[in-house]
Amino acid sequence: MSDTVRVGVIGAGVMGRYHCETLARRLPGAELVAVADVDEDAARRAAGLAPAAAVLTDHRALLADGSIQAVVIATPNDTHAGLIREAVRAGKHVFCEKPVALDLAGADAALAEADRQGVKLQIGFQRRFDTAYRVARRAIADGELGAVELIVGTTRDPKPPGLEQLRRSGGLFFDTAIHDLDSVRFLTGLEVVEVFATASALILPDGGAEGFGDTAVITLRLETGALAVITNSLRAAYGYEVSMEVMGERGKIAVGYERQTAVRRLTAEGVRHDHVGWFLDRFGEAYVAELAHFIDCVAGDREPEVTGADGRAALALALLAARSHREGRPLPAGEGG
Amino acid sequence: MSDTVRVGVIGAGVMGRYHCETLARRLPGAELVAVADVDEDAARRAAGLAPAAAVLTDHRALLADGSIQAVVIATPNDTHAGLIREAVRAGKHVFCEKPVALDLAGADAALAEADRQGVKLQIGFQRRFDTAYRVARRAIADGELGAVELIVGTTRDPKPPGLEQLRRSGGLFFDTAIHDLDSVRFLTGLEVVEVFATASALILPDGGAEGFGDTAVITLRLETGALAVITNSLRAAYGYEVSMEVMGERGKIAVGYERQTAVRRLTAEGVRHDHVGWFLDRFGEAYVAELAHFIDCVAGDREPEVTGADGRAALALALLAARSHREGRPLPAGEGG
Amino acid sequence: MSDTVRVGVIGAGVMGRYHCETLARRLPGAELVAVADVDEDAARRAAGLAPAAAVLTDHRALLADGSIQAVVIATPNDTHAGLIREAVRAGKHVFCEKPVALDLAGADAALAEADRQGVKLQIGFQRRFDTAYRVARRAIADGELGAVELIVGTTRDPKPPGLEQLRRSGGLFFDTAIHDLDSVRFLTGLEVVEVFATASALILPDGGAEGFGDTAVITLRLETGALAVITNSLRAAYGYEVSMEVMGERGKIAVGYERQTAVRRLTAEGVRHDHVGWFLDRFGEAYVAELAHFIDCVAGDREPEVTGADGRAALALALLAARSHREGRPLPAGEGG
Amino acid sequence: MSDTVRVGVIGAGVMGRYHCETLARRLPGAELVAVADVDEDAARRAAGLAPAAAVLTDHRALLADGSIQAVVIATPNDTHAGLIREAVRAGKHVFCEKPVALDLAGADAALAEADRQGVKLQIGFQRRFDTAYRVARRAIADGELGAVELIVGTTRDPKPPGLEQLRRSGGLFFDTAIHDLDSVRFLTGLEVVEVFATASALILPDGGAEGFGDTAVITLRLETGALAVITNSLRAAYGYEVSMEVMGERGKIAVGYERQTAVRRLTAEGVRHDHVGWFLDRFGEAYVAELAHFIDCVAGDREPEVTGADGRAALALALLAARSHREGRPLPAGEGG
Repeated sequence: MSDTVRVGVIGAGVMGRYHCETLARRLPGAELVAVADVDEDAARRAAGLAPAAAVLTDHRALLADGSIQAVVIATPNDTHAGLIREAVRAGKHVFCEKPVALDLAGADAALAEADRQGVKLQIGFQRRFDTAYRVARRAIADGELGAVELIVGTTRDPKPPGLEQLRRSGGLFFDTAIHDLDSVRFLTGLEVVEVFATASALILPDGGAEGFGDTAVITLRLETGALAVITNSLRAAYGYEVSMEVMGERGKIAVGYERQTAVRRLTAEGVRHDHVGWFLDRFGEAYVAELAHFIDCVAGDREPEVTGADGRAALALALLAARSHREGRPLPAGEGG
Repeated sequence: MSDTVRVGVIGAGVMGRYHCETLARRLPGAELVAVADVDEDAARRAAGLAPAAAVLTDHRALLADGSIQAVVIATPNDTHAGLIREAVRAGKHVFCEKPVALDLAGADAALAEADRQGVKLQIGFQRRFDTAYRVARRAIADGELGAVELIVGTTRDPKPPGLEQLRRSGGLFFDTAIHDLDSVRFLTGLEVVEVFATASALILPDGGAEGFGDTAVITLRLETGALAVITNSLRAAYGYEVSMEVMGERGKIAVGYERQTAVRRLTAEGVRHDHVGWFLDRFGEAYVAELAHFIDCVAGDREPEVTGADGRAALALALLAARSHREGRPLPAGEGG
Repeated sequence: MSDTVRVGVIGAGVMGRYHCETLARRLPGAELVAVADVDEDAARRAAGLAPAAAVLTDHRALLADGSIQAVVIATPNDTHAGLIREAVRAGKHVFCEKPVALDLAGADAALAEADRQGVKLQIGFQRRFDTAYRVARRAIADGELGAVELIVGTTRDPKPPGLEQLRRSGGLFFDTAIHDLDSVRFLTGLEVVEVFATASALILPDGGAEGFGDTAVITLRLETGALAVITNSLRAAYGYEVSMEVMGERGKIAVGYERQTAVRRLTAEGVRHDHVGWFLDRFGEAYVAELAHFIDCVAGDREPEVTGADGRAALALALLAARSHREGRPLPAGEGG
Repeated sequence: MSDTVRVGVIGAGVMGRYHCETLARRLPGAELVAVADVDEDAARRAAGLAPAAAVLTDHRALLADGSIQAVVIATPNDTHAGLIREAVRAGKHVFCEKPVALDLAGADAALAEADRQGVKLQIGFQRRFDTAYRVARRAIADGELGAVELIVGTTRDPKPPGLEQLRRSGGLFFDTAIHDLDSVRFLTGLEVVEVFATASALILPDGGAEGFGDTAVITLRLETGALAVITNSLRAAYGYEVSMEVMGERGKIAVGYERQTAVRRLTAEGVRHDHVGWFLDRFGEAYVAELAHFIDCVAGDREPEVTGADGRAALALALLAARSHREGRPLPAGEGG
């Protein structure tokens, strides 16, 4: 059809497969044309809902398909920057999972190339498309809280990654904290001027031996003097926990909930309900909304709400957090990574 | 001291003992002067916090003490009406636990005698002194809901009484439902025009054999056409449950909570917290507030907020509910007991 | 495609349109082939996501299409029974919104015809496909509660229907309460032996003049002596409220929640969050799941979990409730409508 | 009476007055004998419930009364250490509000003197007597969480102090954070090895000009590598907020709640309930329990659960936090104040 955006997906892991389903079934304006993954079976499973889609093991074949207008990148973190560059050079609009890169040079090269090519680049900060975060941002922007004073953010993953996955992700500052770092910017509209981070390896001792923390606290000072703190953990026995509370002069807005299913059990042991289990339970709709936005921007030639610059800004904070942890001291935001 | 109200307590069960503690320690304006119970040890324990208080086994000795101005009656339900009459005839102001009587003749005789003697008579509907119920009543009276349309009330006791206690209580319509029947009147300010009740004996088969239900549903039609429903159970494995929701044109006000202690546990089994355990956990402060009000009314010669007439009105509804259940049909409120 | 089920939808109101979207986009195993509605524009809008689907104003044209295997009926309640009969006579499998009919004769004729034709007939009790209801049913069936004793169910619609819509729906016992009546059967696995219902017209006086209540309380006695009570209202200023609590020997299981978006606002006015707004917010996924089940049953030649007999059983209770309200007395379940 | 503990209270502000009420009415084992405050009216009001109590303006007169066995100190923070020394030198057992002192030298001198005199010294960390904190501590000590990994604590006062009060308190690290610092030790049983704190003056610019922050984040590293973070604010528009979450291998235990009164309002604006308003709402019972414990320890010659050493340990952390904030770097716990 002439009026749908033709999309290829590179990377067919959990996230890539979900994006494939979204493109195949949930977005009338998009068409899933090809899926590439080094694991052919994974690519085939991800393409399952779009029988006409090509199944590829080399992303270069996908990029060479001139009929593809846009690409979704959902590969390991250490490949993002390079793939963005390749894709935009091939003239594709790009939606890339966070982080945009694992170093600022990589991010800058990718952004510059996208700019040169005049294509859209959206980074996968899906929380910006979650209704709760959007309601909170709007309320804060409308002045409901008055001046922002104190922010407390939390992301805890249900299960830790394997060691290889941890390495390729860059570690929890780049893979997990980066969401909270972006959310602080998104919800408050303020920039960070100082970062102090500390981490421990309590869950994954092998990761710890290579310098990867799995439990972390990051303190941010914002340009107005407001403070923020983020806590992260790579394991939560009770499931997937994401929350952010923003406090200001006139009150507090708290995003997050603990409960998944609308059932409570009351027994002699007390009152019990389940907890949000994992990220697709919590953000399934936001993942659809962010892709819908990307497709709309491509189709309508509009700039995405979440830009490469947003991806770079969050990366810079993650890099500072990692360095602050290594050096054991707070760092001004100007010091780069 | 000349300016404290001298009080005697008749009945030293759980409720009587709590009232004794309140009079001895929590109300500066009251003095606990004597405690009477057929069980002398119980009386002695209840008087424990007031070392100077007399310990009696015959309530007539208490009523004969001319220095006592006011009496709290916390004996089994089937003795209330008779004791009120004796106490007011002895010139005492009376605070009596609900129900005021188990039949209308008894209630009328007690009220008439109190009237003749010109003494105060307050009935122990402590929910009327609970902050949550008071907030709700005020909001409804202020028109927050607009016209009231639908009420759902619940009282569930944690553990069933013994058979003898059940008999002396008059059964769940008189001992448990009567609180909800009063609360409907209190929260809405409306009178009942029709009652339909049905009950089952699912918990106490021996009680069932004598006609006592332990699980009941009561439907009320109010004078405006608004409807109310009350559910009661004499056993709740999870503790003590009391709630009332009042719905109107513009919204709903819901009184009640499930949680006692400010702790949540989050584990692989979900999120768990405790439940309110029993009536003193939920209404301990209300029991103090109702006695404080009674003492104030006695000291200041003012009419209590909860009168004998309120006690009689709730009793009339409990009697109708019991009869409706026996006869298997709705009854107009005019039909008496 | 040979392996998808070809479906036509009759009725393109809110519910019909949602079913169309589900068939067009959310169920890979189904194909939306035609939409019929007397309002051609409505049919066209509903078919919007399936560009190849036929848009019809006469359902007979749809039933005449031999390539259509299954039909979804989402028309006004007073047409259900007749349309089921027509559709099954045309050899179609049928998914029909509740109620199956507005009288037992109509239901019996529809069921008998479906039986004769050997086609599937599923009734749209979507709560049976909601995760929370399913978790609750499983827990109760597994004996978590021990014997069931007391059930409290609530359904309150955010906004009342217009008078014409109210008439065609049969009234709140048939359109709203019928969900709760079915849920009592579904959650407990028990049958009803007695019904008492009472209703008031507080919201829609014009409806009241024609005998339609808009606020109702229904008391049910189940075969074991367990009691249930259902309250319904055709308007709730705060949104869409659906809950059911089942209490038993060992505790209580409560289905329902008040909150839609994961945001709380804390200000000097207290803590505030939103409420579930309307039925698609609460049951959107369940509506998809019930159709998925229907399509699976058609494709795999299996009997649906929710049968015409379930639809008839709930209808019989709604009829009894309506009669009990008219006659002002409880009715044994055997007395039919 | 020979078997009650005779107590004098020094300091008749809000906290002192509450302790006076507790001693006068809530603790049968204690007798309020004298109240001293430089403000004679305040002392008189605080003594109101104990008509026989002496009202003094000089605490030395109180300490000179040989019949007084124990003293409660509830004066401004900068007087605590000196008053403890005076009181124990006079042979009194001492209950002193937190902090024990504003510098380690003062604390050490006070503790040494108490030791020499062989009297009890209890510090007013009332959270240790709150049911929720006790339940949490017990669960953690019993291994419910496995190894502790991450703690998030919050204390936010409803209204900021005046500038003079802020100065005398030592600032938020000494007056507010000190509770959370103690709670980390109490709940986990672990000691702190590193402190990083940062603060901003967003609420009280005059305080900021003197170096007092009003909004703070403190990160702690514990001896096992577990991390803790505490956020404090001297103003919360919505009331008094206190919470602490302890996360471990097997889950999380969360202490705290947002709601005071058991009422919810549901309207077109959503669902609303009140928030805990101030510290006596939240900890009224804990303040009674801590004094009851103190009186028991004095009467029974037992060591209090919360010792001067606990007071000193929390003070040392508060001092480190203050210094870390001034110096802009994390500090090892060994570096003293």
